[in-house]
Amino acid sequence: MTRAFNFSAGPATLPESVLRQAQEEMLEWNGAGASIVEMSHRGPEFMAVAAQAEADLRRLIGIPDDYAVLFLAGGATTQQALLALNFAQPGQTVDYVLTGHWGKTAIKQVSPYVTVNVAASSEANGFHDIPARASWQLSDDAAYVHITANETIHGVEFRDTPDVGEVPLFADFSSSIASEPLDVSKYGLIYAGAQKNLGPVGVSVVIVRRDLLERSGQPRADIFDYGSHVARDSMLNTPPTWNWYLAGLVFQWMLAEGGVEEFARRNAVKSGLIYGAIDQSGGFYRNEVVPAARSRMNIPFFLPDDTLNARFVSESKAAGLLALKGHKAVGGIRASLYNALPVEGAQALAAFMRDFQQRNG
Amino acid sequence: MTRAFNFSAGPATLPESVLRQAQEEMLEWNGAGASIVEMSHRGPEFMAVAAQAEADLRRLIGIPDDYAVLFLAGGATTQQALLALNFAQPGQTVDYVLTGHWGKTAIKQVSPYVTVNVAASSEANGFHDIPARASWQLSDDAAYVHITANETIHGVEFRDTPDVGEVPLFADFSSSIASEPLDVSKYGLIYAGAQKNLGPVGVSVVIVRRDLLERSGQPRADIFDYGSHVARDSMLNTPPTWNWYLAGLVFQWMLAEGGVEEFARRNAVKSGLIYGAIDQSGGFYRNEVVPAARSRMNIPFFLPDDTLNARFVSESKAAGLLALKGHKAVGGIRASLYNALPVEGAQALAAFMRDFQQRNG
Repeated sequence: MTRAFNFSAGPATLPESVLRQAQEEMLEWNGAGASIVEMSHRGPEFMAVAAQAEADLRRLIGIPDDYAVLFLAGGATTQQALLALNFAQPGQTVDYVLTGHWGKTAIKQVSPYVTVNVAASSEANGFHDIPARASWQLSDDAAYVHITANETIHGVEFRDTPDVGEVPLFADFSSSIASEPLDVSKYGLIYAGAQKNLGPVGVSVVIVRRDLLERSGQPRADIFDYGSHVARDSMLNTPPTWNWYLAGLVFQWMLAEGGVEEFARRNAVKSGLIYGAIDQSGGFYRNEVVPAARSRMNIPFFLPDDTLNARFVSESKAAGLLALKGHKAVGGIRASLYNALPVEGAQALAAFMRDFQQRNG
Repeated sequence: MTRAFNFSAGPATLPESVLRQAQEEMLEWNGAGASIVEMSHRGPEFMAVAAQAEADLRRLIGIPDDYAVLFLAGGATTQQALLALNFAQPGQTVDYVLTGHWGKTAIKQVSPYVTVNVAASSEANGFHDIPARASWQLSDDAAYVHITANETIHGVEFRDTPDVGEVPLFADFSSSIASEPLDVSKYGLIYAGAQKNLGPVGVSVVIVRRDLLERSGQPRADIFDYGSHVARDSMLNTPPTWNWYLAGLVFQWMLAEGGVEEFARRNAVKSGLIYGAIDQSGGFYRNEVVPAARSRMNIPFFLPDDTLNARFVSESKAAGLLALKGHKAVGGIRASLYNALPVEGAQALAAFMRDFQQRNG
């Protein structure tokens, strides 16, 4: 058994203690005679697991009672489509602030259903910044304003919650939820695929202010209706039980480790180590994001040429530092530093970066 | 470790050898330094797992090359909604043959998008039969005809593929796929949640004749477009990788055990044991389904009164026979006998039924 440091952008590294518990319980859960993955979602065993996971997530993030929490199958992209179907009238205007690849995906999903106003975009400068709030051109009558809290490919992150007045703010928090304290009450809806900070791939979390569920939205199948999912406690149909269970173990681990305040501290340390290695490299490593908008979760960077980028990827892998190849949309290197990546992983990567530069700089 | 015989209707029992392999690989997959659940879906490791799973499923079921195979997040209910969006014009007529609870769910999902013609229904007789093909009132211009191959709650199953002429036949095979040989070429589309015969909950399989993907359907998000999923090999967004991996292990197990012919044999033996115990009970156990439409997968039955039903559930559980309580929609008892439930499990249940009757009859 040689577990390496895994910098994958998602599906991403999980706490080893969580994997060990899942391993121990794989053939039989808690003396029940079967694995949790073999049990009915409506039986008392899984119902307890599900309720505990929601309670733990509420405590971890600090979710007010006037917000519902959903655990839904699949990833964030499905939720992106459901935003328009549930909360906007057909053809109604919605405001999107575009700061990277995933914002574009979010717009693509809703375009068949609504009129998208791109209220602000950093595309012209290569998605290296968050547009200043004063520059946003919000609509008078938008159904909601949508932001991507952290862009995993371009490595830019909102470091403050923008004030958009009375219009509900919807946010894709897939890659930064639970990485630091979050004031849920500033948002109308938060959604996140679990496979970065919350647990395994295959389940998404939606946190929605209950009064918004009264909106009529537009014609849609019952399975696409957030209100139906809330009314059935995310068991409108068979949910991804094992994924939900594993996410619950990750929530318990995060709480035991000290909660979001502790992860905010660790994530500042980890990202500081990597940005430090970049900034102190005299230009050998290059990150193009404006410092105030740098992501703590995903750090894309580039070496002087593609030969060196490729050598860095192969040598780092051989050194036990996995999945550092950049996304194909931007190339180069990308280090993802989610909650479950230990500080020692970032230390090892920073040390490798200095050593690699000495040998190749 | 005391694994019991698990008669859950889904999520359902899995082969112990598959769970053991998943357990062994939970912390590190194949020397890769990480679990498969921690790896990028676009990396070479998971891409190989995914491709092997598709190849194995094609071999297991016998899927012709002119059919695409998708592995999609979530359950069958989402697919039910997508049928209308992808294959019918807005408001176009679609024909549904209603033989139980899941057929009603299928109709509910498409009702916002199309005009549903219930071509035949066994609801008036309590869903105890499959309406004779000659009685079906098919439309002249239906986009497709939909059936539920096996109804898990009412325990009725199509034992032949109905001939519907040139109109594509779509079928929900969630609870009977891979349980016996299947002539895919008779169908336009087959869909199945994996959590009964194919593996774990959280992933669904869609088998679709490629020429149908040229239909324009109706306005929909890209994530709801089967053609987009086919074009990206089910990786339009992050798929439920662990669930897909585990399904792949189940496919390998089914092939190694002898394929669908062998499971057809075992399933006939298993269901024969339980129906035998019912039919030889002199009316103590009662199954209300017309014999020719009896499901081999799910056998609902009733004892003389609810006190006995409840006693049967609690005593069977104490005897290591799990999850025999009937669905709340019909009550009584239900035994699900999917591929991974061994013949020994059905033997044990049949013996328990005889013993229980002797003590309580």
